[in-house]
Amino acid sequence: MRPSGRATDELRELSFTRNYTVHAEGSVLVAFGNTKVLCTASVEEGVPRFLKGKGQGWLTAEYGMLPRSTHTRSGREASRGKQGGRTLEIQRLIGRSLRAAVDLSKLGERTIYLDCDVLQADGGTRTASISGACVALVDAFTHLLETKKIKDDPLNGLVGAVSVGVYKDTPVLDLDYAEDSNAGTDMNVVMTQQGGFIEIQGSAEGAPFTREQSDTLLGLAEKGINEIIKAQQDALGW
Amino acid sequence: MRPSGRATDELRELSFTRNYTVHAEGSVLVAFGNTKVLCTASVEEGVPRFLKGKGQGWLTAEYGMLPRSTHTRSGREASRGKQGGRTLEIQRLIGRSLRAAVDLSKLGERTIYLDCDVLQADGGTRTASISGACVALVDAFTHLLETKKIKDDPLNGLVGAVSVGVYKDTPVLDLDYAEDSNAGTDMNVVMTQQGGFIEIQGSAEGAPFTREQSDTLLGLAEKGINEIIKAQQDALGW
Amino acid sequence: MRPSGRATDELRELSFTRNYTVHAEGSVLVAFGNTKVLCTASVEEGVPRFLKGKGQGWLTAEYGMLPRSTHTRSGREASRGKQGGRTLEIQRLIGRSLRAAVDLSKLGERTIYLDCDVLQADGGTRTASISGACVALVDAFTHLLETKKIKDDPLNGLVGAVSVGVYKDTPVLDLDYAEDSNAGTDMNVVMTQQGGFIEIQGSAEGAPFTREQSDTLLGLAEKGINEIIKAQQDALGW
Amino acid sequence: MRPSGRATDELRELSFTRNYTVHAEGSVLVAFGNTKVLCTASVEEGVPRFLKGKGQGWLTAEYGMLPRSTHTRSGREASRGKQGGRTLEIQRLIGRSLRAAVDLSKLGERTIYLDCDVLQADGGTRTASISGACVALVDAFTHLLETKKIKDDPLNGLVGAVSVGVYKDTPVLDLDYAEDSNAGTDMNVVMTQQGGFIEIQGSAEGAPFTREQSDTLLGLAEKGINEIIKAQQDALGW
Amino acid sequence: MRPSGRATDELRELSFTRNYTVHAEGSVLVAFGNTKVLCTASVEEGVPRFLKGKGQGWLTAEYGMLPRSTHTRSGREASRGKQGGRTLEIQRLIGRSLRAAVDLSKLGERTIYLDCDVLQADGGTRTASISGACVALVDAFTHLLETKKIKDDPLNGLVGAVSVGVYKDTPVLDLDYAEDSNAGTDMNVVMTQQGGFIEIQGSAEGAPFTREQSDTLLGLAEKGINEIIKAQQDALGW
Amino acid sequence: MRPSGRATDELRELSFTRNYTVHAEGSVLVAFGNTKVLCTASVEEGVPRFLKGKGQGWLTAEYGMLPRSTHTRSGREASRGKQGGRTLEIQRLIGRSLRAAVDLSKLGERTIYLDCDVLQADGGTRTASISGACVALVDAFTHLLETKKIKDDPLNGLVGAVSVGVYKDTPVLDLDYAEDSNAGTDMNVVMTQQGGFIEIQGSAEGAPFTREQSDTLLGLAEKGINEIIKAQQDALGW
Repeated sequence: MRPSGRATDELRELSFTRNYTVHAEGSVLVAFGNTKVLCTASVEEGVPRFLKGKGQGWLTAEYGMLPRSTHTRSGREASRGKQGGRTLEIQRLIGRSLRAAVDLSKLGERTIYLDCDVLQADGGTRTASISGACVALVDAFTHLLETKKIKDDPLNGLVGAVSVGVYKDTPVLDLDYAEDSNAGTDMNVVMTQQGGFIEIQGSAEGAPFTREQSDTLLGLAEKGINEIIKAQQDALGW
Repeated sequence: MRPSGRATDELRELSFTRNYTVHAEGSVLVAFGNTKVLCTASVEEGVPRFLKGKGQGWLTAEYGMLPRSTHTRSGREASRGKQGGRTLEIQRLIGRSLRAAVDLSKLGERTIYLDCDVLQADGGTRTASISGACVALVDAFTHLLETKKIKDDPLNGLVGAVSVGVYKDTPVLDLDYAEDSNAGTDMNVVMTQQGGFIEIQGSAEGAPFTREQSDTLLGLAEKGINEIIKAQQDALGW
Repeated sequence: MRPSGRATDELRELSFTRNYTVHAEGSVLVAFGNTKVLCTASVEEGVPRFLKGKGQGWLTAEYGMLPRSTHTRSGREASRGKQGGRTLEIQRLIGRSLRAAVDLSKLGERTIYLDCDVLQADGGTRTASISGACVALVDAFTHLLETKKIKDDPLNGLVGAVSVGVYKDTPVLDLDYAEDSNAGTDMNVVMTQQGGFIEIQGSAEGAPFTREQSDTLLGLAEKGINEIIKAQQDALGW
Repeated sequence: MRPSGRATDELRELSFTRNYTVHAEGSVLVAFGNTKVLCTASVEEGVPRFLKGKGQGWLTAEYGMLPRSTHTRSGREASRGKQGGRTLEIQRLIGRSLRAAVDLSKLGERTIYLDCDVLQADGGTRTASISGACVALVDAFTHLLETKKIKDDPLNGLVGAVSVGVYKDTPVLDLDYAEDSNAGTDMNVVMTQQGGFIEIQGSAEGAPFTREQSDTLLGLAEKGINEIIKAQQDALGW
Repeated sequence: MRPSGRATDELRELSFTRNYTVHAEGSVLVAFGNTKVLCTASVEEGVPRFLKGKGQGWLTAEYGMLPRSTHTRSGREASRGKQGGRTLEIQRLIGRSLRAAVDLSKLGERTIYLDCDVLQADGGTRTASISGACVALVDAFTHLLETKKIKDDPLNGLVGAVSVGVYKDTPVLDLDYAEDSNAGTDMNVVMTQQGGFIEIQGSAEGAPFTREQSDTLLGLAEKGINEIIKAQQDALGW
Repeated sequence: MRPSGRATDELRELSFTRNYTVHAEGSVLVAFGNTKVLCTASVEEGVPRFLKGKGQGWLTAEYGMLPRSTHTRSGREASRGKQGGRTLEIQRLIGRSLRAAVDLSKLGERTIYLDCDVLQADGGTRTASISGACVALVDAFTHLLETKKIKDDPLNGLVGAVSVGVYKDTPVLDLDYAEDSNAGTDMNVVMTQQGGFIEIQGSAEGAPFTREQSDTLLGLAEKGINEIIKAQQDALGW
C-alpha cells in the first residue's frame, strides 16, 4: 500500500555517520532513507545575556535546507535576507527538544549550537534532525568530558523523533515525501530514551482526525522512536 | 489550587464582542479572562500567485502583540524590522486552523486576511485568537453572502481552540499566565464544531509527559472547546 | 457644510478612557469621534547610551496602525520588515511633542515609552495620539510618585494637539477622514496647557495657502486644543 | 549677535551652479553658505503602479547625506541597511514641496526623481535641497520641452524654502549650524514664487513659542524666500 | 617546507563525486584535500527580466558555508539576515567564471543556478567551488540534451580554478588553510580547458609582490589547473 | 582608435583637489577625466572589537555611487535597504589596498574611515577611488601629526591604481566607460610608490586572455600608476 512497499509500522533504513566533518565537536550525518541531514554540535564559551552569571549553560539550534536539497530548487534564505516561518518553527522545535535531553546546570557557562543542514530531503527532515543532533550532542559532551572542561555528563538520556501520519486512511510510521505530501494528518513526535513525551505536534492537513487515530499514531511513534534510539545507541557503541 | 481559584476543568470568563471596530468585514474582540485579542477578517479581491486562475480562494493570518500587552514591554516587531519566530509560528497555526474551517473553492478568487492583535495578554493568546478569528470569519462570510459576492457559505463549521496543561502535576483547562509560566506541560488544541481534531501541539517544558497525561489533557480540551463553540454560537445568535 | 454636520469650529466627541489595559503604568484609549487610539506609557529603568551617566531620563514614542484600522487593509509593517516614512514621521512628532511636556531631569535615569496604536482610524490619528499619550504619561508619573521612585512630578503641564485645515475653502477644526482626504490644506498643531506652541505643521495638499488662512487656522487650533486640554483635565479628575 | 555676524534678516551667500554633473537632465549644486547640496533631476519613462493608465506623471524625491558631510562622521545609511526617520521625513517634505510646483498632468506618464545629496552640511540642508532641486527640475523640464517629449511646461512657478528660528530670543533668518544647534525654535518654510505657502514646519526645541513669534518668523521667511527665488531666476537667466 | 609536506607545485588529493545528491540535474561533491564543497546545478525554465525575449539563457551562482564548516563556528548568514561581502564576492566570481564556459545562446530561455555549499573548509573553497560546479554543469547539460530540451551542447569547454600564493617567500600551488592564513600573497586563477585565462585575482596580504613573483605564480597555476581539468575529465569518463 | 582619441598608453586628464569639503581630516575630489569621486578620510578614536587592546589602529573603506552619477539613474542603496555585491566588492578592495599603504601599529587605537562617493561616473571609479583616497589619507595623517595625536607617520608610501584592458584586441590604459563597456578583458591594478603590486584583478568579459596579454596589461598599468603617483605627489606639494 505504501509507495515504498514498507509495512505500516516500518521505518526507513536508518544510519548515523559520526565524525562526518572534522571541525565540529560533534558531527553526524543522519539518514532516514533518502533524507540526509548534516548535524553538528559546536561548543562556545559564554552564554546569551539573559543567562549571564547564573552558572548554567545554554543550547540552541539552527536549521537550514540547501537550495537544491528538494525536488525543485528553493531560494536560499541567506540571499532572501530572512529565514522563513517554517525554518524558524523547526529550529525552535529542535532546540526545545534537545534542551529537554540536557541538564544545563552541568554545562557551565557554555553554549551548544546544533546546526542541522539538510543535504537531501525526502520527508521527515525535522525528526531526522532531532535524532541526528542528539548523537552529535553526545559526541560534544564526550569531548568536553575528555578535555576535562566539565566533570559530569550533562545528558539526561537520548532523545529520538519520528513522524507518523494518516496516509490513504491508514496510520503509518515514518512518512517519506511521497506519503507526506498526500497525508491527511501529519504528526511529529519527540520522546526520551525513558519513554516520556517531549513534543507531540499533530496537524490535520485535510479532514480532521479522531481521538482514536491520534492514539494509534502515538503507538506507532513509540515503536519507531524505540528503534531509532536503539540505532543511536549502536552508532555510539553503547 | 489554581491561582485563580478555578476548578481544574473550568474555563475563564469568555466573551466575543462583534463589530468591535467599524471598517473590517468581521471584527471581534475576544476575551478569555484578561486575555483580549482584536480579531479582524478582511476580504480582498485576488489570490496569491500560486493560486491564480485556479478559481479558489485563500485565507491567511497575521498575529501581533501590542508592545505593552504584556507585563513588561516587549520591543515592537515593526521597529525591530522582523517578526520573531514565536509570532510566525503562531500566525501559521492560526491560518492552518481556520483554513480547515473553510471550503476555499466556495470563496472565489478572494483572500481573507485574519489579523489577530493582542491588546492584553494573560496566557492563551493563540487559542483565543483562533476562537475569536473564527467568529470574525463568519461575519465576513455573511457580508459576502449579503452583498451577493458569493452564493454558498464557505464555512465548514466553527472552530475553537484552548490550551491545557499540567500545572503542579495536575492537568488543568485554559491556563492563564500565572499557570502557563509555571506549567510542566503545555498543550494547544484546535477542534471543529463536529468534534474532530485540527491541531494538537503538546510540549514538555520541564519533565516529559506520559501518554496517560496526554489523554487526560485531550479530554479536558474537548470539554473546553465544546463550551467555547457554544459561546461562539451564542455570540452569533445561532 | 461639513460631512458630519459639525460647525466649523466644533470638535468631534472626545473621550479619554484611563486604565484601558492592565499592565502599563499608563493606559488610555483616546477617541476623537471614530478615531480610536490605545496609548500606553511604559516605564523602564535605564536610558539610551547617549544619556548614560547624565542623571536625566528620556522619553520616546512609537506609533502603529493595526492593519484593518483603515477603510481598506494596509500591510502590517512588522511583516513588511520596516516602518514606513509616515509612521516614523508621526512617532518622531509624538516623542518631540511630549518631551516638551516633561522636565527630564526629574525623571532619573528612566525611559518612558509611549506606544500609540491606532485601533480605528477616521482622520487625526497623530493629534489624537499626542493628546491621549499625554494622559497616559500623567498616570505613569503618578505611579512613579506613588511608588516613591521619584520625588517631584516631571510634568511641565498638559499638552494637547488637533488638526485643522481648509475644507472646501473654509477653515475647519478637527478634520475627520472625509474632510482630510479632500482638504486643500492640512495643519497639525500641538500646544501646551499654558498656551504656547510646540509644533505647527501645515501643508498645502492642493493650492498654496495664504498667511491669513494660516492665521485663521491657528486660531481654530487654539480654541480646539483649549477644549481638548479641558477634557484631559476632566478625565484626570483635576 | 549672530555667530556669523549677519543681520537678523540676512541670508547666507547663495549660489546655484547648473550642469554640475553631466548625466542628469537637471544637475545643480546649491550652496547656502557652507551648506552644499548636489540636486539632480532624472526623468524616467513610466509611473508608479498606483498611477498607471491615468495619463499623468509623478515626482518623488530622495535625500542623503554623505557620511562625512557633517562635523563628525555619521554611519552610511546604505551600510546600516535602512534610511533613518529624519531622512525619510526630509525626502517626503522635498517631494511634497516640489509636487506643489508642478502640473503633473502635463508631464505624461513619466517620473521625475529628485536626488538631493548633501556634500557639506552647515544647517538648513532640507531648505537648500528644496531650493536647489527646483532649479534642477526647471532644467529637466527644459530638456523635455527641447526634445519634444512634452508640449507644455509643467512648471506652475518656482518654489523656494528657508529656515528661520529663534536664536538667543531673537527671530533670525537662515540658521547655520552654530545657530540651529542652539535655537529655541526652528521653522522651515516653503513658498511659491507667487507668495503662497506650501509648508510651514515649526518646532519648539526648548521653550514653547508664541503666536507673535510665529508671525515674526513667517515674515522673515517671506523676505528670505523672496530673495532665494530671485537668485534662482538669476541662475536660470530669467 | 609546507605544513602538509607537499612539493611546492603539488596539488592536494582531488576528487569529484558525481550524483552526490539525487534531486539536482547536476550534483558533485568536490574535494581538494580536506576542503569539501557540494556543488549542484539546477535548471529552471525562464530567465531574469533583463534577458526576457532575447532567446538566450542565463547562469548564476550562489555560495555558502555551513556554520561549522570552519575551525570555529561562524554565524549563519540566513539568520543574520544578509550575505556578507566575502560571500557576495565569491559567488559573483563563480558565476562570472562559469558563464565564460558556456554559450548561453544554446541554452534557450533557461536559467542555471549553481549552488556551492561548503561542507568542510580547509582553504581554497572558491577555486574548489568553481572546479566542482563545472562538473555539475556538464551533468546538467547532459540531462538537457538527453531529455531533448536543447539540441546543441552549450559547453565551450571545461573550466578549472586553483589558488596559488607566496608562503614563507616561496611560491606554492593549492594553498591549504595553514598556508593561506600565513601567506604573504594569495592569487586565485581561473582558466579554460584551452589554456586561456578567465580570472586572475592576486592580493598582497603583507608585503607587495613583484612582477616576477606574479609570473611564477601564474606558471604554478597553469600546471595545477591542467591537472584539475584532467581530473574533471576522468570523473566525467571523457 | 580609442573613442577619446587617446594613445593606447595615455591616461585621461588627472586632478586631485584637496580640502574639497571642510569637515573631514582629509577631503579630496579626484578626477580621472569625467570620473569624479569625493574621497574623505575620517579619524575616529577606538577600533573594532577584534582589535581592542592590541595597541594598533584600523582602516576601512566605504564606497557609494550617487544615484545619478551614471548614464541612467540607479536605485539608491540606502533606500533599497542593502549594498549590492559590486559595492561590497569595491569597498573591500579599497580598504585592502590602502591598509597595504599604512603601518597600523603607528596609528594608535584609532580607525580611519575612507568614504569614496562617486559624483560622476565614466569608467574606472574604483581605481580613481583608491588613488584619491590615498591623498585624503595623507592629509589625515598630517592632521594627526600636527595635532600631536601620533608621533610617527604611519604611511608606508603612496598607493595608486588604474584600470587596463583589451579594447578591440588592443591593450589600452585607463579605460573610460565607452571602452570599458565593450572591453574583452578588464584588469584593475594597484601598486605602491616603490613599484610593488598590491592587487591584480583581471577578468575576461568575453574571450579568455593569454598570458602574453596579461603581461602587456601589467606593463601598461605600471606606466600609468607611475604617472598617477607623480600627480599625487604634485597635489601634495612633495
